[in-house]
Amino acid sequence: MKYVQAILTMLLSAVLVAGCAQNADQQKDNENGDMNKKEWAIVIHGGAGAISKDKPEEMKTAYKAALDSALTMGETALKNGEKGVDVVEKVINYLEDNPKFNAGKGAVFTSEGGHELDAAIMVGNSRKAGTITGVTTVKNPISLARKVMENSKHIMFAGQGAEEYAGKVGVERVNQDYFYTEGRYKAWKRAVERETMPEEQQSSYIDPDLDATFWDADKYGTVGCVVLDQEGTLVAGTSTGGMTNKKFGRVGDVPIIGSGTYASDVVAVSMTGWGERIMEVVSGNTVSSYMKFKDSSLEEAGSYLLNDVLEPGDAGMIAVDKNGNTYMNMNTKGMYRGAADSDGKHEVAIWE
Amino acid sequence: MKYVQAILTMLLSAVLVAGCAQNADQQKDNENGDMNKKEWAIVIHGGAGAISKDKPEEMKTAYKAALDSALTMGETALKNGEKGVDVVEKVINYLEDNPKFNAGKGAVFTSEGGHELDAAIMVGNSRKAGTITGVTTVKNPISLARKVMENSKHIMFAGQGAEEYAGKVGVERVNQDYFYTEGRYKAWKRAVERETMPEEQQSSYIDPDLDATFWDADKYGTVGCVVLDQEGTLVAGTSTGGMTNKKFGRVGDVPIIGSGTYASDVVAVSMTGWGERIMEVVSGNTVSSYMKFKDSSLEEAGSYLLNDVLEPGDAGMIAVDKNGNTYMNMNTKGMYRGAADSDGKHEVAIWE
Repeated sequence: MKYVQAILTMLLSAVLVAGCAQNADQQKDNENGDMNKKEWAIVIHGGAGAISKDKPEEMKTAYKAALDSALTMGETALKNGEKGVDVVEKVINYLEDNPKFNAGKGAVFTSEGGHELDAAIMVGNSRKAGTITGVTTVKNPISLARKVMENSKHIMFAGQGAEEYAGKVGVERVNQDYFYTEGRYKAWKRAVERETMPEEQQSSYIDPDLDATFWDADKYGTVGCVVLDQEGTLVAGTSTGGMTNKKFGRVGDVPIIGSGTYASDVVAVSMTGWGERIMEVVSGNTVSSYMKFKDSSLEEAGSYLLNDVLEPGDAGMIAVDKNGNTYMNMNTKGMYRGAADSDGKHEVAIWE
Repeated sequence: MKYVQAILTMLLSAVLVAGCAQNADQQKDNENGDMNKKEWAIVIHGGAGAISKDKPEEMKTAYKAALDSALTMGETALKNGEKGVDVVEKVINYLEDNPKFNAGKGAVFTSEGGHELDAAIMVGNSRKAGTITGVTTVKNPISLARKVMENSKHIMFAGQGAEEYAGKVGVERVNQDYFYTEGRYKAWKRAVERETMPEEQQSSYIDPDLDATFWDADKYGTVGCVVLDQEGTLVAGTSTGGMTNKKFGRVGDVPIIGSGTYASDVVAVSMTGWGERIMEVVSGNTVSSYMKFKDSSLEEAGSYLLNDVLEPGDAGMIAVDKNGNTYMNMNTKGMYRGAADSDGKHEVAIWE
């Protein structure tokens, strides 16, 4: 009888130890996932929102072609071993220069009929970040954000001060006219008109003349790029013209480190959508913290943010983790987006 | 023999189930801690940094008295059932009006010899937030931040736009002269002088004439208040004059929701210290996320941020959780601070 007891006690111990070991193994898999580690990976976006599927075929094709060009540009650079920060700047410069997107050329109009641009860039491994808000004469805001990150001991410069800094470090300057596009101008005029309506009419108002390229133009519109480069560095960048008809120097989520733009040692994130919603839940850092503290996958963290924290219609998110897993998803109807990695992935999409 | 086996199998199952139940119980305790829930609680700070212990006795007494007045004001209001947002505004107004602290009257000088003020307020339960950066004529920046939170659909206004918003909603305005104090003026003049020195001399330079009330004036100096009110609402607020001799419209951590100021459904946090360090790790949201995702106590989350994430000399943190547990700690030499709760706690301190 004593032997039986001894054997069963040993069995009991073995079962308990095995159980613990299994848990530890599962955790390790989640944490590293090293078996599928990619050499490099990239995800881009050009804004999220209620993008209509009824758009003319040629317009869909044109947007997809623009996304594909940006993605291919980043892909080639990463394949060639270029640094993540160079790749993010290059890809976002392309999207800023393309009038289809609300960033750089093609930025929306403020309430005063001008343009105020925001951008941010962050390198996860070093925690270095640069961000600017409310610049009016900088052709490529992401390039100024990079200068802040690399040449200043500060992280964020605003308004007139950021303009002065642009003068000091030397980035390309333009007149406000440069940012003009007819579609954005019309959208602004309509937004001004809508403001004169009673509140209940405002919310249900759909702009009849709105150029079909511009959707939900008052809330949505941003470009972003996140990469894992061959050195294992994670970089996130975002650039935007902000909200149509914005007032009072409104700052959205894009230049807020931790909200619209964030990179850590585990993940790089860029958000797009309703800025205030993205800010109040500190989206980028929440994703990174969820992965770190819950030892979860990027997929789980992204789903937590978009489905459990934010509400339908709020936002889209792109991200890449330290193993090169890519993520692009939204709780809006659509998001202009694309992803590629060293395993041969190359996807461009607008709707689900 | 069969019976022995059956009994031991049952025992084994019982042990395993008991183990699981114990874990679940521990988790629940961490999560709720309801047994010690306070009716209300408050923590305040007036900046952290390398505060010298060699200060004259009368100065120490004066600072402690100012902190005690602010704390007692908040304590009385909470005891009387006032709303958290009213209490935070009231206490911060008092600290802003007191020239001892770098916020409102007594704000540091910018590189141009002026004053640019930042402030933020957030209500955890509703996620509502208001924040302003770079205002120059608003007597009490925290009151303008509250107006943004309550009267605007946006969260953050910057610079000239924030000034216009101040005009629209009606808060007390002052001339720049109002913010002048002799000590801050001297500190600025010395900072300008220091800038002309070679870099290695700059970092070791200690201002010989610097009024002893002002310490590390280029990096540190903020006021903050966090409360749990009798309705169970968590509120965080922070206000600052920023950095001495700051340039280019530099924005620090204070008006960044998730960094210097943050409130969620589990905790309200206000930070003080080296703004860029506080921002790059998104301090406030990191504390909240740590508590949520690791099911940890405020004490553990605070220690994680100050000891594992930030570096010695970086920052101080005050916080209150949903059960009224208070936290005030720093990895700097000192922090002007105080805490009180409905269980009779009432403490004011400067050094460890």
